[in-house]
Amino acid sequence: MTGVKHMKWWGWGVEGVAFHHEDKPKLAPFVREAVGLDLDTTSPTPAMDFGDLKVPDSQLTDKLRDELVEAVGETYVLLDAEERVVHTYGKSLRDLLRIRRNILPRIPDVVVYPADEEQVRKIVDATMAADAVLIPFGGGSNISGSLEPRPDETRQIVSLDMGRMNRVVELDEESGLARIEAGVLGPDLEQQLNDRGWTIGHFPDSFTHSTLGGWVATRSSGMQSDKYGDIAEIVRGLRVVQPEHTTVIRPLPSTSTGPSVREMVLGSEGRLGVITEVTAQVHRVPVERVVQAYLFPDFETGVATMREIAESDAAPSITRVSDANETGFSFATRKDSKGVSKYVTEGMMKVLQVRGWDLDTLCLSFIGYEGSKTHVSMTKATVDSIVRRHGGLGIGRGPGQLYDQKKFDTPYIRDFLLDRGAAADVSETAAPWSRLIEVYDATVAAANGAYNELGVKGWIMCHLSHSYHSGACLYFTFAFVYDEAADPIRQYDTVKRAIQQSFVDHGGTLSHHHAVGTEHSPWLTEDISAGGVAMMQGLFDGIDPKQNLNPGKIIPE
Amino acid sequence: MTGVKHMKWWGWGVEGVAFHHEDKPKLAPFVREAVGLDLDTTSPTPAMDFGDLKVPDSQLTDKLRDELVEAVGETYVLLDAEERVVHTYGKSLRDLLRIRRNILPRIPDVVVYPADEEQVRKIVDATMAADAVLIPFGGGSNISGSLEPRPDETRQIVSLDMGRMNRVVELDEESGLARIEAGVLGPDLEQQLNDRGWTIGHFPDSFTHSTLGGWVATRSSGMQSDKYGDIAEIVRGLRVVQPEHTTVIRPLPSTSTGPSVREMVLGSEGRLGVITEVTAQVHRVPVERVVQAYLFPDFETGVATMREIAESDAAPSITRVSDANETGFSFATRKDSKGVSKYVTEGMMKVLQVRGWDLDTLCLSFIGYEGSKTHVSMTKATVDSIVRRHGGLGIGRGPGQLYDQKKFDTPYIRDFLLDRGAAADVSETAAPWSRLIEVYDATVAAANGAYNELGVKGWIMCHLSHSYHSGACLYFTFAFVYDEAADPIRQYDTVKRAIQQSFVDHGGTLSHHHAVGTEHSPWLTEDISAGGVAMMQGLFDGIDPKQNLNPGKIIPE
Repeated sequence: MTGVKHMKWWGWGVEGVAFHHEDKPKLAPFVREAVGLDLDTTSPTPAMDFGDLKVPDSQLTDKLRDELVEAVGETYVLLDAEERVVHTYGKSLRDLLRIRRNILPRIPDVVVYPADEEQVRKIVDATMAADAVLIPFGGGSNISGSLEPRPDETRQIVSLDMGRMNRVVELDEESGLARIEAGVLGPDLEQQLNDRGWTIGHFPDSFTHSTLGGWVATRSSGMQSDKYGDIAEIVRGLRVVQPEHTTVIRPLPSTSTGPSVREMVLGSEGRLGVITEVTAQVHRVPVERVVQAYLFPDFETGVATMREIAESDAAPSITRVSDANETGFSFATRKDSKGVSKYVTEGMMKVLQVRGWDLDTLCLSFIGYEGSKTHVSMTKATVDSIVRRHGGLGIGRGPGQLYDQKKFDTPYIRDFLLDRGAAADVSETAAPWSRLIEVYDATVAAANGAYNELGVKGWIMCHLSHSYHSGACLYFTFAFVYDEAADPIRQYDTVKRAIQQSFVDHGGTLSHHHAVGTEHSPWLTEDISAGGVAMMQGLFDGIDPKQNLNPGKIIPE
Repeated sequence: MTGVKHMKWWGWGVEGVAFHHEDKPKLAPFVREAVGLDLDTTSPTPAMDFGDLKVPDSQLTDKLRDELVEAVGETYVLLDAEERVVHTYGKSLRDLLRIRRNILPRIPDVVVYPADEEQVRKIVDATMAADAVLIPFGGGSNISGSLEPRPDETRQIVSLDMGRMNRVVELDEESGLARIEAGVLGPDLEQQLNDRGWTIGHFPDSFTHSTLGGWVATRSSGMQSDKYGDIAEIVRGLRVVQPEHTTVIRPLPSTSTGPSVREMVLGSEGRLGVITEVTAQVHRVPVERVVQAYLFPDFETGVATMREIAESDAAPSITRVSDANETGFSFATRKDSKGVSKYVTEGMMKVLQVRGWDLDTLCLSFIGYEGSKTHVSMTKATVDSIVRRHGGLGIGRGPGQLYDQKKFDTPYIRDFLLDRGAAADVSETAAPWSRLIEVYDATVAAANGAYNELGVKGWIMCHLSHSYHSGACLYFTFAFVYDEAADPIRQYDTVKRAIQQSFVDHGGTLSHHHAVGTEHSPWLTEDISAGGVAMMQGLFDGIDPKQNLNPGKIIPE
């Protein structure tokens, strides 16, 4: 056994953990109202048996197999079907729909698990010598199609799983810099740092099942990015094994060495080689950490408040506000007499009535504070005063604690719905403050237009998160009951494409932190212009002229 | 006339402005002690006459000239000698030494001044069609050799001066984003923004004579970068005219679109085309702005204090501490009974004596605070407490005000010294906090070793500025009396190379904010590794396969 754990081959997370709704009495009526699905009467589809999958045979040659065994040892060169299937896709809705429908046109021929950079070098050399394809694999949580082989790939395909390279190698406490092997999963990394009093401060939704190298390769961003920065800021040094070189970017606070090679590796999705080591900014675990909940009468007011906080001298760690739909969803997923609605349904309700707020447009917001006690109380005082000026309402720490505890569980809900015939996924963007409401309105309209076109009852909800000086991220979740007869993947495409097109048509980017892959590459040219694509192409061609390194990703083919 | 003003062809700044020492009584003894130069007895070399220069003839063909005239009009196509000489070099010491010695192996054949992006497009097209070389020119303040033509260039050379493109085109007050033409000089830009209550917050030493496009093309950083960020953070959107495309990077707060094209244009020094427009983060002019002075018993203590400030929740706008030599220099350039030493020589001196500080190791520090009154006073309280804990001493706002007023005047001193036979220039780096003192000690030793080798009396001084979470910039100034008979340029090289080598040998970068050009390219491979250079080469080859765009810069030839 390799010792590396993977998510379910057919869904999110670990075997035995699943979302259930029996203890959430408001969810069934909510889902019925939102997408017309009756949770009480719909039986989940029976779990698939792995044996039902038609798994293509491995095309690995004995020669390449022998070289890989020579590189990493027999135990770490795996050709069995489940290993190869697990390494074929990420966890987008499209991935789950395909795997549940036995759509496996081309899967890796072998999965290898190197123990160190020297072994990565040998794998890269053997793969290049065989003119094979190399696809680096972290936690497999990607939802942008960054991992899948080209369906028509005729060369051998090697999946390089980084899971054994998971150590914090060195901690420079004076500089707040940690040298870390790129294959480490979020919780393992954080545990190693916490044990020494430190944190990386990077907590994407995928945290429990994604790796440091994956965050770098996809330009990830965590929930506390307002304080700790996106992964692009957090990463200072890098080691990347490439066909001709091992590129070493030394950890520097800032540098003026021409076009940034560090920023070329960031987001490269395996197309420039294998990221083996990252030197990351780390921080001492803060003395105090608070997530405070607020309510706003409507989304526009919430967004305007976040904007003013971003412009102010306050430096919170999280700024987040849900639209009315997402707020309703939060209320509906509460357990009995716990969570958000406890605070809203009791004393607070009277306050809202006195204010004359429309409960249908009510928006829930979380703002996080981290640092010394003084910093937390000063920042909170500044934020509270901005919130009050905009007519918002603080509702204490309870809902924030709940959000904080449950923040990594959301993806399980998608499998729960999919088991019951509803497709749900996410799309997110970033745009300047002045265009956020335009992007929001246009995207909601685009999704609803797509639902009408399909003749389905659909749902879309959104939150703003990740504030910057000049704008923020809008994160949409959408769902609808698909029609198996009408091709669910085509239906999913109709909705997803409408949303993505709306982003780029209204000044947003194709993704704020989910990468390009194959899922978003159709919008790359509109986003960064043909010249930008040409620059990227030159970069890829220079390092990988025969397209052996995760081909087909980022640049549209 | 083009309406675009330039610096002196033989030195820094505008005609008629120069440094003088008569009102600074401590300077002459200081300089005598430091480099053995007697200001009282040394006569300045007589000013050169432009007519003494041997200016190579223009090699411009009539055909290209006609096309350029067609593009921008007769008035804005200049072939006269002084225009062409002004556009040959930046303002490094090497540049000044060469121009004063009539070393002009190859100079631009023509200087063109486009009025808008459409004209830039025509110039680029005509230049490419003629297989000529195109060198974009901003303020001409570069000190890394980023502007000079290759000495053996056989093709025609077009210098594209951006000086007429100087407008703030649009201000999005909601997003804090300004669309700005790239040719605008610092003071002109700041005036246009200030008139509307805004600031870009970017104030490099070269501010008065450098342009926005130049800052982007060289990865500049301003004195207030602790608050406003380096230019890399400030720039959100870009327009770049390239041979095949006009690349448009839309202003986004953050994005996940693969390798960052924005970060490829940053630092590209003209090698990827002409930056015509920048969308920059701008900020409302702060309500309060304070620069506070502090004293530390020695440099190590000052650096340790800056490190702890960077780790704390405090967010000052400037963190700067001079070593003992630079502190001595600051005291020596004061006017009578004004400036720093007024504060040190009177009441303060007694305090220092009580504390038992060695005046020879005393270090002067400036810390800046900007924002609301509450933010300024809270930040200052946090910083003051850290300073006190390290044994530092606040000495009020007077010296800081003086520093703030005089901050852009320093380069004039270099010409003053050069006129009297002393070579002075700067080299700067950045490194992690844990290595700063190592870099500092090694660099001082390397410079002194070079002086010994040359048999000259030399000087080196340093300050820390631009603090980040994981490290800071060290900014060195060095000076020595050169021996005209022994080739001043070779002597300069000996010192400069020793300093640069020390940076990269001890974990520092070849430059924190002065770019690579030709001056620093010998250290590029050591800094970003051969793989990093290969990535950059692929990028350049993809956009400019025949090397028409400012060839010979960044990557060593």
